[in-house]
Amino acid sequence: MSLFLRALHGENTSTAPIWVMRQAGRYLPEYMAIKAKSSFLEMVQTPELAAEITLQPINRFALDAAIIFSDIMTPLPAMGINVDFAPGPVVTPVRSVQAITVLRIPQAAEIAPFMQKAIELVSAELIHKNIPLIGFAGAPLTLAAYLVQGSGSKDFEDFRAWLRLEPKLAHLLLEKLTEVTISYLQMQVAAGAKAIQLFDSWAGLHSARMYHEFAFPYNQRILSALQGLVPRIYLAVGASHLYSQMSTLACEAVSVDWRTPLQQVRLALPHKTLQGNLDPAALLGTPKTMALEAQQVLEAGLGGAHIFNLGHGIFRQTNPDMLSRLIDQVHEFQRLGDTP
Amino acid sequence: MSLFLRALHGENTSTAPIWVMRQAGRYLPEYMAIKAKSSFLEMVQTPELAAEITLQPINRFALDAAIIFSDIMTPLPAMGINVDFAPGPVVTPVRSVQAITVLRIPQAAEIAPFMQKAIELVSAELIHKNIPLIGFAGAPLTLAAYLVQGSGSKDFEDFRAWLRLEPKLAHLLLEKLTEVTISYLQMQVAAGAKAIQLFDSWAGLHSARMYHEFAFPYNQRILSALQGLVPRIYLAVGASHLYSQMSTLACEAVSVDWRTPLQQVRLALPHKTLQGNLDPAALLGTPKTMALEAQQVLEAGLGGAHIFNLGHGIFRQTNPDMLSRLIDQVHEFQRLGDTP
Repeated sequence: MSLFLRALHGENTSTAPIWVMRQAGRYLPEYMAIKAKSSFLEMVQTPELAAEITLQPINRFALDAAIIFSDIMTPLPAMGINVDFAPGPVVTPVRSVQAITVLRIPQAAEIAPFMQKAIELVSAELIHKNIPLIGFAGAPLTLAAYLVQGSGSKDFEDFRAWLRLEPKLAHLLLEKLTEVTISYLQMQVAAGAKAIQLFDSWAGLHSARMYHEFAFPYNQRILSALQGLVPRIYLAVGASHLYSQMSTLACEAVSVDWRTPLQQVRLALPHKTLQGNLDPAALLGTPKTMALEAQQVLEAGLGGAHIFNLGHGIFRQTNPDMLSRLIDQVHEFQRLGDTP
Repeated sequence: MSLFLRALHGENTSTAPIWVMRQAGRYLPEYMAIKAKSSFLEMVQTPELAAEITLQPINRFALDAAIIFSDIMTPLPAMGINVDFAPGPVVTPVRSVQAITVLRIPQAAEIAPFMQKAIELVSAELIHKNIPLIGFAGAPLTLAAYLVQGSGSKDFEDFRAWLRLEPKLAHLLLEKLTEVTISYLQMQVAAGAKAIQLFDSWAGLHSARMYHEFAFPYNQRILSALQGLVPRIYLAVGASHLYSQMSTLACEAVSVDWRTPLQQVRLALPHKTLQGNLDPAALLGTPKTMALEAQQVLEAGLGGAHIFNLGHGIFRQTNPDMLSRLIDQVHEFQRLGDTP
């Protein structure tokens, strides 16, 4: 089994595997070359392009996992929602009982056939390299934030108001998103994904109480539906107030942002593989300051299973050589030395 | 002594005092009437206007404290920094050794004479009502975020990179901001402020380690400089990972955002008055859902000194009647009942 999957399954490996969020993205000149000729939606929806972009960082760096190039909004058009990118996602707000009632629950095969094909193409390449491919989806409350607000937002205040004004409608919407997300992730696994990550990027905006009502039960159903199929990673950002709830989520790993040192997080999540948690800004420092910060993360990750990653997506200003240095450093760090 | 000051000094009062962040602001039609005729800077820099705006919510609601109408960027022009509002603050980035070296350290009386005058005007009014006036300043790391980035930002990545590339310059800038902030707050106290709040709005963006190096020592110097003069409130947002450091800050109270229930925060900050922490989105719900959420906050605040507030600024969409209801509810809630 690959280093990544062993760590994800809870093994305290002798070196930490590493991949980074948004590793296929705008900091890579080869990605920008494709982007110059295609829109974001074309890149996501053309299997050959999505596969090529997914493999770009794998061909350049000694990464331990690939993640399929896509977007958390990908499954929504099959439900009848038109999504634009400008450059962030923009939709006609989905707030009324009618707008939610008409949302379709597509069959797994209808949701994103282009993605199924992209995963098959990538998997055929990666099998020779023993590098697992990660599939992913947005968590229901995070998807609903965009759908109700109509776009990204600093505070998502319309969404937060709506959860209070229309709790029944909110549960209906979250219910539908949950059902589709389960099929969507099962499709990705059937096509070749060896692990999945559930992105709950905006979960941290909500209080522990609101999370308990509107996020936890849906996340739990999605993660439980994949039990025994592939190992599961759950990500939330700015969510240190939610660790006690995360500790009971049906997932092998929790992805941690850069705010809290991993040894402290491990006390709150003793049975999870921890993924993270270098500040992506560290790659914008000098080689020396980055090495120091990475060393702190590596040491903080000792004492349990650890997948090295950034606490959030890599910044587009990042020099790719910095990522290359980082990967070398992580692979050279021996986690289980012969203590004399 | 007023209810607000007693709670701020640590007394477990029989009812909780209440004020709300941005209580003088865009949700009030009387504020919008002034704003229609004046720019934001004119409102801040004209003592009669700033005083009138400060008193608007006091005249309308039964609030327990006023906060001087101003902005965290107010002391910067006296240092030689030109600040525009569009509508958020915009400055020519202050990043080079030269840009930082030339920054002036003005005398207290030079920093913001219009604010001194506004505080005197407001204090003369409030003294009859036994309502204390809160002065405030931005914390150095939060001010530096705007100065280095050049404006507000979702991720402040240029600033986070700069802290790593130029740590010595960063400390020089923070040093100067600290010195000016101390004079600025002392001026406010001399003019009549009965308490101060230090706004570290962006502290939560940084890891515990970065906060320890670049925020804590400066906050501590500022708060210590006011020791014995007036009681002090420290605010950070999205900062549950920083509570252990906040517990040793030289302040009477910590303002808590809406993410974590107060009874949990009290375990981490046992010796502080807690201020907060209703989600400002609660005021966008129905009277019934708001009352339920406020009740939860009131109950969670029992067992120690509590100043009721929102976890962040009141949203401009808020119906003022909702705030009125909220204030009544807080004042009717008996915290120290006769247990039979």
